[in-house]
Amino acid sequence: MGQGFLPTFDDVLDAALQITGVAAKTPLVESQILNRRVGARVFLKVETLQRTGSFKFRGAYNRISRLSSARTPGGVVAYSGGNHAQGVAAAAKLCGLPSLVMMPADAVQLKVDSTRSYGAHVVFYPPHEAHLRNIRASRIAQRRGAVVVPSYDDRHVIAGQGTVCLEIFEAARRLGAEIDTILVPCSGGGLAAGCALTKEALSPETRLFTVEPSGFDDTARSLSVGKRMKNDPEARSICDALLISPPGELTFEINKELVTGGLSVTDDEVRDAMRFAFQYLKLVIEPGGAVALASVLFGHVAGMGRTVAVVLSGANVGPSLYQSAALENRPAS
Amino acid sequence: MGQGFLPTFDDVLDAALQITGVAAKTPLVESQILNRRVGARVFLKVETLQRTGSFKFRGAYNRISRLSSARTPGGVVAYSGGNHAQGVAAAAKLCGLPSLVMMPADAVQLKVDSTRSYGAHVVFYPPHEAHLRNIRASRIAQRRGAVVVPSYDDRHVIAGQGTVCLEIFEAARRLGAEIDTILVPCSGGGLAAGCALTKEALSPETRLFTVEPSGFDDTARSLSVGKRMKNDPEARSICDALLISPPGELTFEINKELVTGGLSVTDDEVRDAMRFAFQYLKLVIEPGGAVALASVLFGHVAGMGRTVAVVLSGANVGPSLYQSAALENRPAS
Repeated sequence: MGQGFLPTFDDVLDAALQITGVAAKTPLVESQILNRRVGARVFLKVETLQRTGSFKFRGAYNRISRLSSARTPGGVVAYSGGNHAQGVAAAAKLCGLPSLVMMPADAVQLKVDSTRSYGAHVVFYPPHEAHLRNIRASRIAQRRGAVVVPSYDDRHVIAGQGTVCLEIFEAARRLGAEIDTILVPCSGGGLAAGCALTKEALSPETRLFTVEPSGFDDTARSLSVGKRMKNDPEARSICDALLISPPGELTFEINKELVTGGLSVTDDEVRDAMRFAFQYLKLVIEPGGAVALASVLFGHVAGMGRTVAVVLSGANVGPSLYQSAALENRPAS
Repeated sequence: MGQGFLPTFDDVLDAALQITGVAAKTPLVESQILNRRVGARVFLKVETLQRTGSFKFRGAYNRISRLSSARTPGGVVAYSGGNHAQGVAAAAKLCGLPSLVMMPADAVQLKVDSTRSYGAHVVFYPPHEAHLRNIRASRIAQRRGAVVVPSYDDRHVIAGQGTVCLEIFEAARRLGAEIDTILVPCSGGGLAAGCALTKEALSPETRLFTVEPSGFDDTARSLSVGKRMKNDPEARSICDALLISPPGELTFEINKELVTGGLSVTDDEVRDAMRFAFQYLKLVIEPGGAVALASVLFGHVAGMGRTVAVVLSGANVGPSLYQSAALENRPAS
């Protein structure tokens, strides 16, 4: 069970049962202004309204709620830039388990505060030692009698994220709409993999694209060449939630088979998407949560399709970054 | 038909049919953080995601879509601080009718721009001449062969706003929840009256409170004394959508019988509610749209109830007011 096993669509269905009544069934909404602007029917999966402010709660709860506290007296250990951190902390609290989360020293303050608010013990590591996170986490977990909850490379975590796509198809069917294209923000690839498994089972002809920040398009390049590529360590982006590289082992096993292609967007396009969301959608979105919206707004999707689902994956952004990205006037990029 | 006739619950049901497929069925969402903070189950009716960014589209479309363009070649005329303006402009455009909207010279720029973007001709009037608006609107309408669409004192407008409450009960029933208290932002009283008719038909024991800005609590005072009271003309508030007084004639006829009571909140409480919505709900709300949320956050509801519905009624706020109200640090009020 868990890490090492590839999930299937049955695991996604099982995850949907596991998280029912705990995770929010987030709305699928439409904006006439957005539809007109991009010339397609766009459904927004508003995962920004998920518990903890991002989709990460789904996978974390699906994993952690299967642990027995008797066998894991030390609870759970995770490492994360912030959204998985909050998901793990909130899920562990609901399950009555202690949590320790390793976060980079430059993590977004709001994400640190929120993770602590769920009762997690937060330990910081220097950002340049990110490659040592998994070894350190394993050591800490061993010492505490805890289990490491990976942020993407885990059967139940991937399956949990797949419930996002399951709900998209459920809601679209109620509206009589057939989704021909799905766009998901991507970093480690867990959301993409879970959604890919789901769309493959429910609607195999639907296309699924990952969207990444420019300079962090390791999944796009990996999909192109068929093997896991890394990002340039000098690259920078405001999308703090999407900086992980290379793609996960399990997630890439799935994504290389089922994902249609990888897109990328610039930070300026992300800022414009956040501003569009403030002005017209009335939704707060964090930079990493806005990349799929940006790809639609800026026409990155070749042969756009007529009915497109866009995942707004997270909203954990502090006031000062939000102000400079979403509210300040800039010349249009 | 129209102005002068009191609507009934049948008119609300009729309005629901009329706006189906045009107005958004906005989500009813929950926040665990909000629930914990106020010690009740709070359902948020996210009318900020309605077409044009406020509930006003419902009533405007319900009224305007019943006009025949043959008999009203000049289309529609309205006067509004901005949300009704956008609702009328968008509804008229959908119905293929021209629209002229009188707005105060100090209207929020975003509301003016948005109203124009739907093709309305905007005419400004000096704010101190607000009391002459209806006479001028009638004159303009007569000259143009147009119909005045009132912002609240109209049977179909009130009925349209009542669909907000209809959808709250529908969604709550699907979730197995019984709403014991409803809180709605209030100015002219159209939303309150439509919701009051609806709750009276579906769940008469449910309490409904209006919420107004301090200094603009004409409905609260009118409910107390049983007749329509005005506000102090010197009063000021950041809630630009809620400054109308006295309560409407038709709306007060309904509200004095069916509304449980009137609450009010300070501008600082509104700012804190907007900040709470940014930080925890991830929703953009304009000041006037946040008053009901503020009343819950600050404990203004006596005997709060266990299952409360709060209408977030509008989100049309510009970046600079949003920044100062929702993002800037202030000592807690």
